[in-house]
Amino acid sequence: MVPRNVFYAQSGGVTAVINATACGVIETARKSKRLGKVYAAKNGIIGALREELIDTSKESRSTIAGLRFTPAGAFGSCRYKLANAEDNRREYQRLIEVFKAHDIGYFFYNGGGDSQDTANKVAEFSRDQDFPITCIGIPKTVDNDLPLTDCCPGFGSVAKYVAISTREAGLDVASMAESSTKVFVLEVMGRHAGWIAAAAGLAKDHRNDPPHIILFPEIAFNRAAFLKKIKETVQKVGHCVVVASEGAQYKDGTFVADAGAKDAFGHTQLGGVAPTLVDMVKVEHGYKCHWSVADYLQRAARHVASKVDVEQAYAVGRAAVEFALAGKNAVLPIIVRDKTSKRYKWHIEVAPLSKVANVEKPLPRSYISKDGYGITAKGRSYLAPLIEGEDHPPYQNGLPAYVTLKGTMVRKKLRPFKV
Amino acid sequence: MVPRNVFYAQSGGVTAVINATACGVIETARKSKRLGKVYAAKNGIIGALREELIDTSKESRSTIAGLRFTPAGAFGSCRYKLANAEDNRREYQRLIEVFKAHDIGYFFYNGGGDSQDTANKVAEFSRDQDFPITCIGIPKTVDNDLPLTDCCPGFGSVAKYVAISTREAGLDVASMAESSTKVFVLEVMGRHAGWIAAAAGLAKDHRNDPPHIILFPEIAFNRAAFLKKIKETVQKVGHCVVVASEGAQYKDGTFVADAGAKDAFGHTQLGGVAPTLVDMVKVEHGYKCHWSVADYLQRAARHVASKVDVEQAYAVGRAAVEFALAGKNAVLPIIVRDKTSKRYKWHIEVAPLSKVANVEKPLPRSYISKDGYGITAKGRSYLAPLIEGEDHPPYQNGLPAYVTLKGTMVRKKLRPFKV
Repeated sequence: MVPRNVFYAQSGGVTAVINATACGVIETARKSKRLGKVYAAKNGIIGALREELIDTSKESRSTIAGLRFTPAGAFGSCRYKLANAEDNRREYQRLIEVFKAHDIGYFFYNGGGDSQDTANKVAEFSRDQDFPITCIGIPKTVDNDLPLTDCCPGFGSVAKYVAISTREAGLDVASMAESSTKVFVLEVMGRHAGWIAAAAGLAKDHRNDPPHIILFPEIAFNRAAFLKKIKETVQKVGHCVVVASEGAQYKDGTFVADAGAKDAFGHTQLGGVAPTLVDMVKVEHGYKCHWSVADYLQRAARHVASKVDVEQAYAVGRAAVEFALAGKNAVLPIIVRDKTSKRYKWHIEVAPLSKVANVEKPLPRSYISKDGYGITAKGRSYLAPLIEGEDHPPYQNGLPAYVTLKGTMVRKKLRPFKV
Repeated sequence: MVPRNVFYAQSGGVTAVINATACGVIETARKSKRLGKVYAAKNGIIGALREELIDTSKESRSTIAGLRFTPAGAFGSCRYKLANAEDNRREYQRLIEVFKAHDIGYFFYNGGGDSQDTANKVAEFSRDQDFPITCIGIPKTVDNDLPLTDCCPGFGSVAKYVAISTREAGLDVASMAESSTKVFVLEVMGRHAGWIAAAAGLAKDHRNDPPHIILFPEIAFNRAAFLKKIKETVQKVGHCVVVASEGAQYKDGTFVADAGAKDAFGHTQLGGVAPTLVDMVKVEHGYKCHWSVADYLQRAARHVASKVDVEQAYAVGRAAVEFALAGKNAVLPIIVRDKTSKRYKWHIEVAPLSKVANVEKPLPRSYISKDGYGITAKGRSYLAPLIEGEDHPPYQNGLPAYVTLKGTMVRKKLRPFKV
């Protein structure tokens, strides 16, 4: 039997380690005689619909190995959610056509909750159409909000970045506080869940260490209580470091960021949470403040990735291929923490896609301290192992030597398709 | 002769490597039998006036060694400029009293242009008062704007951070651009000079690499030209990465940031350059944008310090002590680049404080490309060596194991003094 080809796509917001997963998929697939070439969709599922496939067999072994330490989506990603097949036969039909045209027998979809939903729909549709394709989801998201898996590849590295940045900026403001800056606010990602903000809590070894205040989307923001806590902290510690989720919100669901500035055109989008909070503090207390918005820097920061995260990202890619070779379908690899071991240990298990699609795992209330401004010992013991270990990329001329693909495209065989 | 004690203070905005300089001072002073104890001012010159001195002899050898890899100001810094002695005898007189009370014979002042001015004034005043004290300045500033010295300790590490962040965020936006974010703006420090923004240019190896636009305070901001360049870049490259100095300004000197949002109270301070630029781009082109403000993260980022910078920071500290032992006064160590060597080589020389005080070194126009949006080959060849080499700090539990001082205070002998 001629081995059938493999399709791989990256989906949604990228991470510092999603390419490590791609590396796991490609290196493992290359070792198997039962698999053909790995075709990667250019810019995610959009590329699949457009029949834009990158032939990874044209990439050298060292380039593929280099994906392990290269951040962001080397093949391009997209934010594009396929609607249900009953409302959207056109796109599913097209995918099947592309798979047929390029003899693709394996569909690997690397993304968050929405993407696992898409993978599941493709599995269902191809089953209904009697087209034999193996569909495997591969987890990825800095948001850490997928169910079943103990954590999500991508999260550990952003967690490490945020904890380190909090520690470093905290030392800075402590140095300056006597005569200058007293309050520093760092805005981090997390529109719906406070996982990333919670990770900042790992920087705190002693009672007076930063962060002094964490703002979670899960805890209703109370302006008066926040300002009181700022003042108390400055009086007690001499300064105050705040880490705020971009999704921090009032009780009625209004985002703190939306309550901020309007620009000359009347838009409310200009500010972020950090400048809005800083403005409150300046007006109320008159303290000198500084603020930072980490944005893409946090999720692209491969230079300071967590070793555990890199290893897990690679492992889910490898496992996806192994599952496919073992005849599994409509599943995804998940990370399972060994609860009996004192030292952190994890392994990969298999879970059905249907149980992961469209389910969000919230940050447990038990991980957030009673006053709502910090993390508990339980939260810490969950988070701490995920940032363990360093995996420095190679450097050249003082900069990380990230790889670039040749990106040789597979020759198209079908008529164009409008996405 | 009983050896006289040494005074050391950190001044102005702190850096990722100013403690490496402190390490150089203290380790070198500890080796000399001609020097007494090193007393470090708590929170800079304010601490000296208040007679708040930290006895560094109480710190272990490993803590002092750990300063080499610990960011920010371990002893505390301050923003406090001493006025001229003729207008301000009270403070100068107080300093002399503190020095006498604690048998201090050496004054080491670690800071930027203002601080070198203070060191020079202390030298002049003590000379006029016939009080024998050796005054040595030690350069430090992320702004890289001191004259005479080829570069300033602190700059190389922030330059490395900014170049790496630009490369990483650039990979991120490139991954997302097909269906989502097309423009990313990173705001960096540099109120008066574009040295830090220029360093982002080191991320560009190939024509289409980020950054695609750098905004320098030195080049008048032109809204129409900027928006045109954004559009051209998105059309050509698919996305656009902008690195903007916080000091980017219009021809009339108005800061771009000030032209932005007003908050509910009518303040204009809320925004920064990055959100202001993003707002322009959204209104004009409708592109989805992301933005980041690095703020303290950039200058505290010891986890990704430049090895060259760390070595130079240590070397100026060591040289300061060596100069003092050699009987030099009212001088500072400067870094001199060997112009005859093809490989980057540098050494320390001595310069008079009077020539450094209150002089700012601008970013040469010849380092900025003709269109004003990038750096030239000349700029690159100046900047590139300064980010060379890595000097990873030790890690513990996934985080850099920065040191904390015991901070044992020297017993006060004088009456209180109001600063």
